Amino acid sequence: MQRRTGPLAQLRRGHEELVLGLLRRNEPMSRGELMRHSGLSRTTLYDIVGALQASGAIVTAAQDSGQRGRGRPAETLTLNPDAGHAIGIDFARRATHVVVVNVAHEVVGQATEPHNADVAWDERVELAERLVSDLAEGTLRLGALSAVGVGVVGPVGDLGEQRRLEEVPRLLRKRFGVPVLLDNNTRLAALAESIWGAAAGEQNVLYLRLSHGVGGGLVVGGALHRGAHGLSGEFGHITVDPLGAQCGCGGTGCLETVASVRAVLDAYHEAGGRATDISGLVNSGDTAAQDVLRSAGTQVGNVLAALCNAVGPGVIVIGGELSEAGQDLFDPMKQALDANIMPISRNKVSLRRATLGDVGGALGGIALVLHESPLLSNYPAEPDAEEAT
Amino acid sequence: MQRRTGPLAQLRRGHEELVLGLLRRNEPMSRGELMRHSGLSRTTLYDIVGALQASGAIVTAAQDSGQRGRGRPAETLTLNPDAGHAIGIDFARRATHVVVVNVAHEVVGQATEPHNADVAWDERVELAERLVSDLAEGTLRLGALSAVGVGVVGPVGDLGEQRRLEEVPRLLRKRFGVPVLLDNNTRLAALAESIWGAAAGEQNVLYLRLSHGVGGGLVVGGALHRGAHGLSGEFGHITVDPLGAQCGCGGTGCLETVASVRAVLDAYHEAGGRATDISGLVNSGDTAAQDVLRSAGTQVGNVLAALCNAVGPGVIVIGGELSEAGQDLFDPMKQALDANIMPISRNKVSLRRATLGDVGGALGGIALVLHESPLLSNYPAEPDAEEAT
Repeated sequence: MQRRTGPLAQLRRGHEELVLGLLRRNEPMSRGELMRHSGLSRTTLYDIVGALQASGAIVTAAQDSGQRGRGRPAETLTLNPDAGHAIGIDFARRATHVVVVNVAHEVVGQATEPHNADVAWDERVELAERLVSDLAEGTLRLGALSAVGVGVVGPVGDLGEQRRLEEVPRLLRKRFGVPVLLDNNTRLAALAESIWGAAAGEQNVLYLRLSHGVGGGLVVGGALHRGAHGLSGEFGHITVDPLGAQCGCGGTGCLETVASVRAVLDAYHEAGGRATDISGLVNSGDTAAQDVLRSAGTQVGNVLAALCNAVGPGVIVIGGELSEAGQDLFDPMKQALDANIMPISRNKVSLRRATLGDVGGALGGIALVLHESPLLSNYPAEPDAEEAT
Repeated sequence: MQRRTGPLAQLRRGHEELVLGLLRRNEPMSRGELMRHSGLSRTTLYDIVGALQASGAIVTAAQDSGQRGRGRPAETLTLNPDAGHAIGIDFARRATHVVVVNVAHEVVGQATEPHNADVAWDERVELAERLVSDLAEGTLRLGALSAVGVGVVGPVGDLGEQRRLEEVPRLLRKRFGVPVLLDNNTRLAALAESIWGAAAGEQNVLYLRLSHGVGGGLVVGGALHRGAHGLSGEFGHITVDPLGAQCGCGGTGCLETVASVRAVLDAYHEAGGRATDISGLVNSGDTAAQDVLRSAGTQVGNVLAALCNAVGPGVIVIGGELSEAGQDLFDPMKQALDANIMPISRNKVSLRRATLGDVGGALGGIALVLHESPLLSNYPAEPDAEEAT
């Protein structure tokens, strides 16, 4: 998991990936078979295999039964099942979500625990460790290739921005003793939806979460797009009304001021509605509920149309609590999308509801680990990876 | 230039790139040196070298002068200077632009010829061939690795869309006898600006062209982003005024209806202005000119802010004739951008004027060829490539 850079390190990393990829598809294999299939020289192959054994990524398997009749049977190599677990954690505002997968990409389990928004980082990390331990039932292996992928609220980008977050990786490394990868949790949910969720297998995905905050993420050519300073996917802060309400971001009339859970409930109450949450609003069946959902859906659809013209996604995925409002929200959204998208692009983008729910951010943390780990790299390109769920 | 797919072909292609990359940096090299530096086995290396020789990509150089004192000196290999030229053509609406580069990435020349918008494809292709031949002054080499990268007006995406374009590659292949790669010319200009132009070396670039049409392109993580159906970068068709003018795309109130050359001139004439082109308008120095530029700049800035929040570019490049209006356009544009971008992202994006002018689309065609050619792949990652201009 050590990061190496430069052309030579990159070349070496490529060789490692080659060997690991062959073992993932065909294990167990002998060094001779690995040489033949990889095209690497004996010197290079033995060097790479040695390093992967030293790091704990691969181990010698049971000896080949030996079809050759005589001589010592060739030693075969296999991925190390004890190489460790990948852990995904989403430190959401009011809950902590965790997911654990093993080296074979199987989800060991997932768990969620709600808490107050003001819980301190050390308590959150302790909670996450407890949830992970419970899931793995004492069998948690933190081996050479374990890592924790973590989603957090708010922008994750330049180092300068991250001062507010610097204690998070530190606390996690102290607890788990493994590398920690960090990203915005909504962006991670976008990644997870494009691997295992509503847009599974899609290469160009726009994910929008309508929750207490409004944000999202772009998957571009199969990879999560972070932007120049880690500040992409801030769809909730696109201006929809220059004369609108003040937004928490410091801007005015952002999409979040009209399409967040709070904004929709406020508009509903102003129109005389009484329900105190989105499901109550939806189930009320009254006209005021339909009106506020139509208004929010229309504003969202307008923004989606602009983004489709700019980015050209194949699939739009809508997640977050507001997406539970169903057709009263989605119909006007689709209508505004169709009205404002370039006519030539109309009906070329599929509008879908997210399927992974609350755990999407933590699953995205797993995806981050699998993408970065040399053992599990090139993921999700491997078809077997998608069978993990 | 043959397209191969599948993991094995990809592996082989990777080996070819490795060998070609080593030769590009260190030529000439012997097979032994190539083996040592690439880490490939003798069998694989000889196989790859043989195939590259057969395709004409590499040739044997003058024999090594032989420091070893005795025995036959090792044969050294080098990139084939006769491997051919890369040709970039931009079939713009009212002009044809061409650029020619040689195998060493040196621009042999560039040329432009204006014509009417209704010139037929066979005439345009004939014109392009004449311009290319004149540039190369009879030395044009269409070798094993030559190709033509072509920009055209309008969307280039799904095969279904391309029926209107299918004769273009056919005519070009017939004329030049080499592979033809096609993309939208504005998108290609975006690529060129991010390699050689105002955003050279940047990984995340938003390019917007304000010309007779309004469009653009996104470079994302160093690669041109096409979108799911080749319909990305249609910034000109983002709705800015739902009650606005009808747009050529079939939509209403698109950015193009307020920020194209025609739209700005129309608004200027309505306000009593008399100049008939953008430079006349700019040089008039009258208030009406400033007003219409302020209005257009503001609308453009609003759209740019939304796109920055969504995509997070490090650099915005503005091209096209309208960009010649200078500060009267750029000041209000920057002001609207700053007012509507997420405050945390403010001042993190650099707003620049395009530097490649009319020839950007044709240069982008070259970039397309260099990206796709095994001889010149991984471009523009190679620093020497940028010295070509």
